[in-house]
Amino acid sequence: MKKLINEVENVEQEMIQGLVKSRPEKLEKLEAGNIVVRKTRKQGKVALVSGGGSGHEPAHGGYVGEGMLDAAVAGPVFTSPTPDQVYEGIKAVATDAGVLCVVKNYTGDVLNFEMAVDMAKDEDIKADYVVVNDDVAVKDSLYTTGRRGVAGTILVHKIAGAKAEEGASLEEVKSVAEKVIANVRTMGMAIQPCTVPAAGKPGFELGEDEMEIGIGIHGEPGTHREKLAKADDIAKHLLDKILADIDYAGKEVVVIVNGMGGTPLMELYIINNFVQDYLKEKGIKVYDTMVGNYMTSIEMAGFSLTLLRLDDELKKLYDAPADTAAIHK
Amino acid sequence: MKKLINEVENVEQEMIQGLVKSRPEKLEKLEAGNIVVRKTRKQGKVALVSGGGSGHEPAHGGYVGEGMLDAAVAGPVFTSPTPDQVYEGIKAVATDAGVLCVVKNYTGDVLNFEMAVDMAKDEDIKADYVVVNDDVAVKDSLYTTGRRGVAGTILVHKIAGAKAEEGASLEEVKSVAEKVIANVRTMGMAIQPCTVPAAGKPGFELGEDEMEIGIGIHGEPGTHREKLAKADDIAKHLLDKILADIDYAGKEVVVIVNGMGGTPLMELYIINNFVQDYLKEKGIKVYDTMVGNYMTSIEMAGFSLTLLRLDDELKKLYDAPADTAAIHK
Repeated sequence: MKKLINEVENVEQEMIQGLVKSRPEKLEKLEAGNIVVRKTRKQGKVALVSGGGSGHEPAHGGYVGEGMLDAAVAGPVFTSPTPDQVYEGIKAVATDAGVLCVVKNYTGDVLNFEMAVDMAKDEDIKADYVVVNDDVAVKDSLYTTGRRGVAGTILVHKIAGAKAEEGASLEEVKSVAEKVIANVRTMGMAIQPCTVPAAGKPGFELGEDEMEIGIGIHGEPGTHREKLAKADDIAKHLLDKILADIDYAGKEVVVIVNGMGGTPLMELYIINNFVQDYLKEKGIKVYDTMVGNYMTSIEMAGFSLTLLRLDDELKKLYDAPADTAAIHK
Repeated sequence: MKKLINEVENVEQEMIQGLVKSRPEKLEKLEAGNIVVRKTRKQGKVALVSGGGSGHEPAHGGYVGEGMLDAAVAGPVFTSPTPDQVYEGIKAVATDAGVLCVVKNYTGDVLNFEMAVDMAKDEDIKADYVVVNDDVAVKDSLYTTGRRGVAGTILVHKIAGAKAEEGASLEEVKSVAEKVIANVRTMGMAIQPCTVPAAGKPGFELGEDEMEIGIGIHGEPGTHREKLAKADDIAKHLLDKILADIDYAGKEVVVIVNGMGGTPLMELYIINNFVQDYLKEKGIKVYDTMVGNYMTSIEMAGFSLTLLRLDDELKKLYDAPADTAAIHK
């Protein structure tokens, strides 16, 4: 294993400290754990909390800040944070308006966030959660009942975050988060695996000319493996699966061309070149495009495509200001 | 070679098209070549032009936009654009106030930009250039007489770009660019090589537990190779070389923890955790920190550290608005 780290057991903590120290006036780490919170919080605003296993940076700590999350709770690499840790995050940022947790659909995350929300309610904190399941690749998977939550989660952070910032109620913020979930779809692939530091070796292996289509963000299996194809053909395959899932015809969309961590920007832009032409051909108008590393799998090489179907409300909230390490508007 | 591309010979063009299509309202590609320009340009403002070989994305096309560059001219991967191509870029964005080219110090780039500036002058365009040489690793190198220009170049774009936006003269913009160059220092390292698409195999090889210290952004040799050390020890070594080069004592700095393209954000944050503590220990105040992929070497795994020594003028210009694919303020 060749990594730029110190001790394997300190990876998560040092990373969270490093993130916070890159924006010391905006972010702090709680003593209680690997939990990033905004330094300045607004009373009366619904607080947004997300999190999950580490290894998906900048998710989720990189999305803490004005217009997006209030707290992000980081578990060990590819492992859910405990209910206690999530509860610490909720408690730290809770307001009278309540707390909404944004959870990616993995069995461990859903269980632990659900328990944390119950713990919060026991302490008279108004709390609720939504589950993101944007990955169209597989129905159930290694760690999931139902579809997995992947890069589309970022758009839930963005849009629900903007709604909360407007002073909306917990019910209203939850409702717009669910609207994003209903309208966002993602699919990914990989050409190189990643190595969990504590494991010391790659989570899976791929042949010299092989790729995995529909891969999850923990390297869990997708739909199939095949010979590495041209970027355009791969992007077309992913888009076709996404476009078959809900009707995008005549709609405006936000596109995310997301790198898995080890994919150079050169390749993401080449993929975007095809994506934009193909959507145009299909009569789908692109409202905005994000190209970069938004939901990663450590140093995995590969990418995912996300399409969010917009309406006027989602557009307005997508455009609202955001001031986080990873997204600035 | 495992890459997400189509035809090797189209990599640069498709990448530039993909970048432009990610911001179609802000950017356009010239018919004349792989040249990205702002769609809306300001008369009376000094135009800033940069460029060089491709493979360093988001440099330089990702820095075209309000507050930074007016044009970026992309050569083939790791190969300087021709004087004709650079001249096309200059001509497209030239104003009565003139054009300043920001050139990284590589023999090919310097020669070709110099010729392009001469061509522009022959056509009565006021044009000049500065050469960035921020890399403290080696004195001369494979492609360079004198020090190499690396990630510090981004801060020249940012600060000279802000000065130009204020309506400063060509002489004033050049003078502030030179001030940045005099105050910015960088050093890098790598643990994994990168592959130029047209070459089809890695540009160099490293042993399973080996790293190259002081590496250049084309994979050209640095100061030495040694056994892979802990992230903190590596960061300390790079910082010590930078801090020995000019006097940072009691000064405020901008820090860039720059990924080489294949380095996960997890590792960059771990490195930043040490960098911030070490600078504090040295009495150097960090004004702002950038962590991410700013000047890459395709998918090389490694990082560089950049420190810019600030004064009030540089601080103000650093903070000025910027609206580009890679930097938004």
